[in-house]
Amino acid sequence: MTRMTQRRQVTRVDGGVPLARPDTLAVEEPMEIRVNSQPVSITMRTPGHDLDLALGFLVTEGVVHDPEDVAAAISCADNVVDVTLRGEAGLTPRNFYTSSSCGICGKSSIDAVRTTSAYDVASDPIAVSSSFITGLPDRLRAEQRVFDRTGGLHAAGLFDNSGDLVCLREDVGRHNAVDKLVGWAVQQKMLPLRGHVLQVSGRASFELVQKAVMAGISVLAAVSAPSSLAVQLADETGLTLIGFVRGQSFNVYAGGQRLSP
Amino acid sequence: MTRMTQRRQVTRVDGGVPLARPDTLAVEEPMEIRVNSQPVSITMRTPGHDLDLALGFLVTEGVVHDPEDVAAAISCADNVVDVTLRGEAGLTPRNFYTSSSCGICGKSSIDAVRTTSAYDVASDPIAVSSSFITGLPDRLRAEQRVFDRTGGLHAAGLFDNSGDLVCLREDVGRHNAVDKLVGWAVQQKMLPLRGHVLQVSGRASFELVQKAVMAGISVLAAVSAPSSLAVQLADETGLTLIGFVRGQSFNVYAGGQRLSP
Repeated sequence: MTRMTQRRQVTRVDGGVPLARPDTLAVEEPMEIRVNSQPVSITMRTPGHDLDLALGFLVTEGVVHDPEDVAAAISCADNVVDVTLRGEAGLTPRNFYTSSSCGICGKSSIDAVRTTSAYDVASDPIAVSSSFITGLPDRLRAEQRVFDRTGGLHAAGLFDNSGDLVCLREDVGRHNAVDKLVGWAVQQKMLPLRGHVLQVSGRASFELVQKAVMAGISVLAAVSAPSSLAVQLADETGLTLIGFVRGQSFNVYAGGQRLSP
Repeated sequence: MTRMTQRRQVTRVDGGVPLARPDTLAVEEPMEIRVNSQPVSITMRTPGHDLDLALGFLVTEGVVHDPEDVAAAISCADNVVDVTLRGEAGLTPRNFYTSSSCGICGKSSIDAVRTTSAYDVASDPIAVSSSFITGLPDRLRAEQRVFDRTGGLHAAGLFDNSGDLVCLREDVGRHNAVDKLVGWAVQQKMLPLRGHVLQVSGRASFELVQKAVMAGISVLAAVSAPSSLAVQLADETGLTLIGFVRGQSFNVYAGGQRLSP
């Protein structure tokens, strides 16, 4: 846990009066992901669960589908993880979902996710009640230990159908928190994550919906607003997208058939 | 303004009771930035101020230093901006600041910014009072029109030394909001932005401090927490970094000498 935070002397100014005091910062450091010794991505992340992050990134980018695709994953240097792939698990370039030849538009991004995803999210029969959804943010926050000390981390929590938190990951980058969680799940042989709900602490971007779909998650709930393209992707893949989960209320943007009374 | 938001029918659930109603979403769409017709980056952004975004990105990546470096910048297709550079303004690869040969670590990231930046931020004599700082978030929010309708956008506001808001940009990505602002400023021949304060709506990451330094901004204030590497970069470049600006209080993480009583 120690490398996730750093102590620092700061000046707290309150009502114009400065006071020196110690503060706790969330650590941010670059990490390089290599596949078969070739660098494929550098991400600014909070150290910890680095192998999970690398594996989850490769799952949500459509490179790895199964633990059997991975021969080895090692931290080969400080802030470098090398994943050795087995067999046909090829190397797909970063940002594959926006490099479609039909142009740079929301539609091509969505089509790329639909053709790359190994899982049919739409057919997941999971149903969730509104009290299940409204209870998620408090349960996530209760377990989010580093945030309490720094106020500076995003969280992603995976809940099963009975409401148990099965995995929680925190990171300065919201996409990294989800990748760490998916990387944990692929090692547990839990993919696709049918019957699970992903709760995130911030907003729901296209990228977060993409990562949920690539992991076979069919319900994504966010504390804040989704973007237009996030809603469109949820709509077209059959993911239930919920936003603004606050107090006793929330908004359902797509896949409302999974809400039970 | 219309393309920045999109109307959508959603289901609002309050106390378990569902109600259909219209909602406004922040638009997210991919945009490709080309330099001399070569693609260099794809970013998920909110449409609007696309030329500002492309030019600001090239400034904060250290490719463009001056409006004279740019022969032309055009939207050559929907969601594609092509920037034609003049003379010696070469092409620097994306993520140059983390590809230093001395390894993937915070120190190499910081060294790369220090050797690439054209501006000496440390020598800016600007001084700000605590009431100046505590007034910024409300002033930013008052002008942040799209956020009010969507709750889904980050904002970056540039204030001059007398407290006037000189430019405001909004985007689903916090880094894009800053790039749009810097791209506007380079066209106004305002770089380096000495004597100005940048206020951002969210957290302060390494990337935001990097962008401020690359534009010659010496005071960055954020509503939420900075990361460890953001503080370290601010420290080493001489930028004043302020976080948690809420009500009458805030924290000063680096460069406290610019705070006047």
